[in-house]
Amino acid sequence: MEIKVPQHPSNLRLSEFELISRLFVPLATGEDALGLTDDGAIIPARPGYDLVVTTDALVSGIHFRSEDSAATVAARSLCSNLSDLAAMGAEAHCYSLAIALPVDWTLEWVTEFAGTLGDLQNQYSVFLLGGDTVSTPGPLTISITAMGYVPTGKALRRGGAIPGDRIWVSGSIGDAAMGIALLTDRLECPDGEMSSFLTSRFETPIPRLELGQSLRDLASAAIDVSDGLIADLTHITDTSSVGADVHLDQIPLSAAAEALLAKNSSLSTYILGGGDDYELLFTAPEDNEAVILALADRLQVRATAIGTVTDGNGVRVLDPTGRAIDIGMTGFQHFAGKY
Amino acid sequence: MEIKVPQHPSNLRLSEFELISRLFVPLATGEDALGLTDDGAIIPARPGYDLVVTTDALVSGIHFRSEDSAATVAARSLCSNLSDLAAMGAEAHCYSLAIALPVDWTLEWVTEFAGTLGDLQNQYSVFLLGGDTVSTPGPLTISITAMGYVPTGKALRRGGAIPGDRIWVSGSIGDAAMGIALLTDRLECPDGEMSSFLTSRFETPIPRLELGQSLRDLASAAIDVSDGLIADLTHITDTSSVGADVHLDQIPLSAAAEALLAKNSSLSTYILGGGDDYELLFTAPEDNEAVILALADRLQVRATAIGTVTDGNGVRVLDPTGRAIDIGMTGFQHFAGKY
Repeated sequence: MEIKVPQHPSNLRLSEFELISRLFVPLATGEDALGLTDDGAIIPARPGYDLVVTTDALVSGIHFRSEDSAATVAARSLCSNLSDLAAMGAEAHCYSLAIALPVDWTLEWVTEFAGTLGDLQNQYSVFLLGGDTVSTPGPLTISITAMGYVPTGKALRRGGAIPGDRIWVSGSIGDAAMGIALLTDRLECPDGEMSSFLTSRFETPIPRLELGQSLRDLASAAIDVSDGLIADLTHITDTSSVGADVHLDQIPLSAAAEALLAKNSSLSTYILGGGDDYELLFTAPEDNEAVILALADRLQVRATAIGTVTDGNGVRVLDPTGRAIDIGMTGFQHFAGKY
Repeated sequence: MEIKVPQHPSNLRLSEFELISRLFVPLATGEDALGLTDDGAIIPARPGYDLVVTTDALVSGIHFRSEDSAATVAARSLCSNLSDLAAMGAEAHCYSLAIALPVDWTLEWVTEFAGTLGDLQNQYSVFLLGGDTVSTPGPLTISITAMGYVPTGKALRRGGAIPGDRIWVSGSIGDAAMGIALLTDRLECPDGEMSSFLTSRFETPIPRLELGQSLRDLASAAIDVSDGLIADLTHITDTSSVGADVHLDQIPLSAAAEALLAKNSSLSTYILGGGDDYELLFTAPEDNEAVILALADRLQVRATAIGTVTDGNGVRVLDPTGRAIDIGMTGFQHFAGKY
């Protein structure tokens, strides 16, 4: 959705009601939102379906950089939530948005933010259900609660992994962590195209909604990679009361990540510990391998088996000789408790 | 719910996972919350019912004072949302909580906050569905999305007022605005008991859930008084495309507000413009008067007719002689766009 507004000096302020009616009401495209006219929205019961609900909060300077574009902030805010729906096998339906605008907010910024949300809404078939706009003396803070449908009882959970299951991951791992390292000059990449690819993986996460829905009858447990591969796999092993063996050399890497890793093997911490890839990490019975590979092929998403669920506890990472590697950094250590 | 934790030095920090498991998991008392173990929660479809969803964000220093107690912050955060459910005639079900903790957060504070949420959960029969805990370099910021059920198609809306309907309000109006004025030394009240009453009306709003549910078949439109009596009535008149005449001397006041107003008639701005009372403001056909009064009597909630819906537009406030009063301050002018 493109929202056209006249040029304004950057410090022009609209009242909250003008802001909402001009920029947010056009995003309330679903009937349930009631055009944002009421105290709340109304989601009719959909018999035969459960409603999956997830909440993510993002703070400028913590979950994104203050210099990140409004498009990046919008994409990371919405897509991290849609990724949670994907991890539970849900079809995305709608989201509510609470946004606390800092004192130096500009109409241009909010216009770009809302415009990106509009584009993503079209791409992922969701709409703005409702929300709240407030001001803050602190940094920009965004909280989104996303909702989606899954046939009754079919949601993917973290607790279903069984010893002997294969461990799978979609796409490639470590890109987003390298991307933010590039953006913050903690890492260098001489190849412009590779650099753009890695930063885009941080700036515009792709929620694996179709894959998640297709895994409802194939996967035994699932989560999305947001805290880091090992940290998120540990959420599965802890909840399922199992262990996991992961083969380091089987973790799928992008060409860009592989190129950087070839020059500096210590970057494997980005693979094991970096979060924000928003890929799906799931377990499935060994017998489902061929179906999963065919599914991935049909959806044009890479799916790679990276290890096996064990009857141990915790996650072991094995080198090519089968020896366990000491994992120092298992998660992206910002204080962020998704629950 | 009382949550007992050992004494700690005030700056002791738990990891986010410990914080969640110790203080928030005990609040996830509904099955839908999955014990906060997964990426999201799962609300089963309830055939015959709509799900009403509402979001409110609160920022320290804007929506509550930084010196307000954790109990006050918890009560205002949760009850403002429950009040939105009440205004739509919904039965409260659950809520998700996104909380951004400032750098100086203490375990004592979060413990008191969670303890108060637990008490309110018992009082209003709701549970924590899920959420997110993050840190912020800015002020404490809380966003709650509350959900409740209403029989299909029975939700109260803002847009149903019809010329000739009576305008009603529950409880008393202006107390919370006077309460916060007392707390911030902008107002004085020599009577300790009256002062406590007024401040408690700010600190611990009472969502009128039972009244809202009982009004489903009686009211033509409803809203809760959060922005201010006139501002909120204007939301009804705008959405319903009607006008409203309100009689200043019929607006119900508490004994405390009446006493202060008797000494200073300029305090009527608190009555007309002050928000945060979280009373229900609703319209209903004239014929329903006796039933509404009987209902209020049964629920032991005051219900007062304060005016009439007209075929004009906007809200007129009339003095005892029937003359329209010039309304200067029609709303509490913090930047806060509930939508």
